[in-house]
Amino acid sequence: MILEAAVQEGDEVVLGPILQREGDILTRSIGGDVPLFPPSNFGVVDRGIYRSGFPSEENFPFLKVLNVRSIVYLCPEPYPKVNAEFVRSQAIRLFQFGIEGSRESFVTVSNRTIMEALRVLLDIRNHPILIHCKRGKHRTGCLVGCFRKLQNWCLSSMHEEYIKFASPKIRPSDMRFIEMFDVSQMMHCVLGIIYRYHGFGHQAPRLVYQKA
Amino acid sequence: MILEAAVQEGDEVVLGPILQREGDILTRSIGGDVPLFPPSNFGVVDRGIYRSGFPSEENFPFLKVLNVRSIVYLCPEPYPKVNAEFVRSQAIRLFQFGIEGSRESFVTVSNRTIMEALRVLLDIRNHPILIHCKRGKHRTGCLVGCFRKLQNWCLSSMHEEYIKFASPKIRPSDMRFIEMFDVSQMMHCVLGIIYRYHGFGHQAPRLVYQKA
Repeated sequence: MILEAAVQEGDEVVLGPILQREGDILTRSIGGDVPLFPPSNFGVVDRGIYRSGFPSEENFPFLKVLNVRSIVYLCPEPYPKVNAEFVRSQAIRLFQFGIEGSRESFVTVSNRTIMEALRVLLDIRNHPILIHCKRGKHRTGCLVGCFRKLQNWCLSSMHEEYIKFASPKIRPSDMRFIEMFDVSQMMHCVLGIIYRYHGFGHQAPRLVYQKA
Repeated sequence: MILEAAVQEGDEVVLGPILQREGDILTRSIGGDVPLFPPSNFGVVDRGIYRSGFPSEENFPFLKVLNVRSIVYLCPEPYPKVNAEFVRSQAIRLFQFGIEGSRESFVTVSNRTIMEALRVLLDIRNHPILIHCKRGKHRTGCLVGCFRKLQNWCLSSMHEEYIKFASPKIRPSDMRFIEMFDVSQMMHCVLGIIYRYHGFGHQAPRLVYQKA
């Protein structure tokens, strides 16, 4: 079962060379004396998709290391000057979806806004992409929850993740929004992906339909 | 500044085709009627690196979707039979580092164990890789904290992430362990990466040393 023996205290450990992709993990972050400051409430959602609270100037070097190509910004307020200058200087594409930050906001936001944000999120031409609102809790948490729904996660895991980032300010209305989000609306989009990349030809459209 | 106009309520939204990598996000999870159950306390650490609590049988389909190739298991107890059978059937490599789960465990664990676990973690031949202990809180949190230190994260962000996954059972001893972990021990390892992939020849060893 245990293919690799555990290291024992007192054993000699030889740290051999490590295989590492260029642009990955260490190779993309090592080499600075100054520590990197990720934005508050930062997290990795999936390969090339990140989430956080509002990035401030001290977070810009970190975003450079992530090589962020696009930002999904979920507040209605205009981007502050310093942030706007940063995205311009880095040629980052800014996608703004102005969702009000009021307590029960997500109840009144139409699914269309979320769907359009998801479409941006799923498009690898926009990756690496950062989702953020003000605190990275509620609006970001709802969008990530809907994304997990597209990934076919069970509801309790979506909620567990939402709670992790929203704590201690959990909003039941957000959790209901995630539960109620109708993932089938995105399906013709998703079907496009399946058709393109899985080589389903005219022979198997029914199979695809059943799966989706 | 805003390169992409936000969608307005009432606008017609056309969901065009999305560019998606094969094996990614949707293409690797869509297509099942049964929801996927990620292990408790699941999180994405970095590309190809995941963390969680102890996976149970209901989580195995999810791990299959992630295409997990290796597991770093941080408890001293033998792997349960059902888990052992799963890793064998999937040809997953299991790396066990038996760290006691007692309250002040990390104070007494030598850095050598953590270093060896980090070496496994950094090696892309082992990716996608899942780190887990029992709850995915303390032992996993310490290892991920040390990994973030290698990534040059500031201490407050490492601690913020630790707290997110360990809450509400935060252990100050773990946070001290992360703070005190001497990242320079890993440096000859990291230097090997830089030499291999960044083409530093004999001309620039000093530069590399300064950077590390």
